[in-house]
Amino acid sequence: MSAAEYVLVTGGAGYIGTHAVVELVQAGHNVVVVDNLVNASMESIGRVEEITGKKIPSHQIDLLDKEAVKKIFQQYKISVVMHFAGLKAVGESVQLPLLYYHTNVGGTVNLLEVMKEFKVKNIIFSSSATVYGAPQYLPVDEKHPTGSCTNAYGKTKFFIEEIIRDVCTADKEWNAVLLRYFNPVGAHKSGRIGENPQGVPNNLMPFVAQVAVGRRECLTVFGSDYDTPDGTGVRDYIHIVDLAQGHVAAMKKLKENCGCVAYNLGTGVGYSVLDMVKAFQKATGKEIPYKLAPRREGDIATVYADPKTAEKELGWKTTRSLEEMCEDLWRWQSNNPNGYAPAPSSS
Amino acid sequence: MSAAEYVLVTGGAGYIGTHAVVELVQAGHNVVVVDNLVNASMESIGRVEEITGKKIPSHQIDLLDKEAVKKIFQQYKISVVMHFAGLKAVGESVQLPLLYYHTNVGGTVNLLEVMKEFKVKNIIFSSSATVYGAPQYLPVDEKHPTGSCTNAYGKTKFFIEEIIRDVCTADKEWNAVLLRYFNPVGAHKSGRIGENPQGVPNNLMPFVAQVAVGRRECLTVFGSDYDTPDGTGVRDYIHIVDLAQGHVAAMKKLKENCGCVAYNLGTGVGYSVLDMVKAFQKATGKEIPYKLAPRREGDIATVYADPKTAEKELGWKTTRSLEEMCEDLWRWQSNNPNGYAPAPSSS
Repeated sequence: MSAAEYVLVTGGAGYIGTHAVVELVQAGHNVVVVDNLVNASMESIGRVEEITGKKIPSHQIDLLDKEAVKKIFQQYKISVVMHFAGLKAVGESVQLPLLYYHTNVGGTVNLLEVMKEFKVKNIIFSSSATVYGAPQYLPVDEKHPTGSCTNAYGKTKFFIEEIIRDVCTADKEWNAVLLRYFNPVGAHKSGRIGENPQGVPNNLMPFVAQVAVGRRECLTVFGSDYDTPDGTGVRDYIHIVDLAQGHVAAMKKLKENCGCVAYNLGTGVGYSVLDMVKAFQKATGKEIPYKLAPRREGDIATVYADPKTAEKELGWKTTRSLEEMCEDLWRWQSNNPNGYAPAPSSS
Repeated sequence: MSAAEYVLVTGGAGYIGTHAVVELVQAGHNVVVVDNLVNASMESIGRVEEITGKKIPSHQIDLLDKEAVKKIFQQYKISVVMHFAGLKAVGESVQLPLLYYHTNVGGTVNLLEVMKEFKVKNIIFSSSATVYGAPQYLPVDEKHPTGSCTNAYGKTKFFIEEIIRDVCTADKEWNAVLLRYFNPVGAHKSGRIGENPQGVPNNLMPFVAQVAVGRRECLTVFGSDYDTPDGTGVRDYIHIVDLAQGHVAAMKKLKENCGCVAYNLGTGVGYSVLDMVKAFQKATGKEIPYKLAPRREGDIATVYADPKTAEKELGWKTTRSLEEMCEDLWRWQSNNPNGYAPAPSSS
């Protein structure tokens, strides 16, 4: 009798990681989580265990500590790595690029080296639509050129994609699915897990939710003179549970010895900032005061995915509506006004 | 009285590093060399000391050993880093991409972090024309798009360029000159230092020279059906001493607070493989037997530089002829048939 096989989820205590772990466990996979907890807390894993009714082995480990990573591979029989770990604040990455290259690229190279050493040759990587840079056409499909990112965060995603691609080229036994996320929002239906940004949220919807719950006074909308229907930026928002289920679909793809393949995870529909604010107000009955401000450097007018390749090749598509994204986000935020923090804080 | 300021030369014991150190010292700079000696020997530094009549402080250090790098910055007052260290075999990089990303990118990130810590904010980086990928037009100028490299070696050069660019964007006190080499060949006029490849040379001219000196039987010419005058690949060969002097010119550029700038180092003239073989035969009187073979994957027909921007902004251009490249290469090779090795080997 062979030992159980595990999916190693790096960054498994974070926003996307926790939702992926729930879907993986519910699909019957054994999961082991590693997370350095720089931007997460093990409380979230407790909530995942509560939702799934399963114990999730979890270890506080930094991918930069290669010996610690090796120990995990010695302790568990790992068949697939789902790699979410990484710093993710765009603005911070512009200020501290070396921190981002060291952590994200260095951590990934360590991880891949350990995988190679232990002959674990299947990886699903948490990439981003940011690898496309400013879109040359819309909707953006996977054939769109990559690499012209304007910030270090985006470049780390692009670099890691290229590194994984080269590893797959060098050894045909490797398989990799690069999942390029558009804009994940919302939370698990239970309201027990969700996005828990530290400090001022970088993304629109967590900010909106914090305004609604009274932690912030007013939303600032950056740019109202874009060439879009209402002048505000248009993005492809995707429900986090749809996104997480895309990862379960990618697990099946790996079994086909797919080599290195990339898929967009998006809905194919773009909504503006003001669309989102209105939808959130409607779904929650909360008013969101906002003010218009100049564009932010590096922001683009409109991005949305062509999700057809993912549907065709992964048998996956989004099913959750904008309304659901807002309702589920609100359930999470209103039940957990300070995220996973045990007591209210005045951040 | 303030302590003397040093130029730290990483990879200073290698082919390009040694020639740069000679020109730097002769231009009056104090130099300290670090090299991990994975692909070089300290014998070369002894030769540099002989040529220049100066003692060159040298340390066997790997850039992946960050504490060792810090000690160098504690020991010497460093004003500029000239960064040559890195693995450089294209074919090997395709087989072992993680080794290349770990060593070249990881080593550079460590170096930049230490520079940041010690407030040393001037760097000259040993990049390559390979960052341009297959040329979209000729001659290739610095505005040509970068990034579509086909091998991990080239990608490490591109990634490092981008990382350095981001560091300069984040802190305007940083200055960086990215020097994109075309095909360095030849050797110092003294015949005491030169290219010393381990194993089978990856590049044309060292191979030709080893055939001439009797270490190899016959040259293999990869591809004779390219769309070029004689069907063989056309490249921009540049004399190593011209190239090294480009680095001294770049030192002056840094003093202008140039930010992050990139320059081609090439002659602007392309020669074919058979042109080079004929020139070498003429300059040396040695016959070079060769055989034609199919193209190598990833090779391109023709690349040569537009060197005008370097001439205008660095006040530098090449002055050494193809004949001199061949003569100087031959002086080095015939005086040192086994490179820096103390005794003949049968490699």
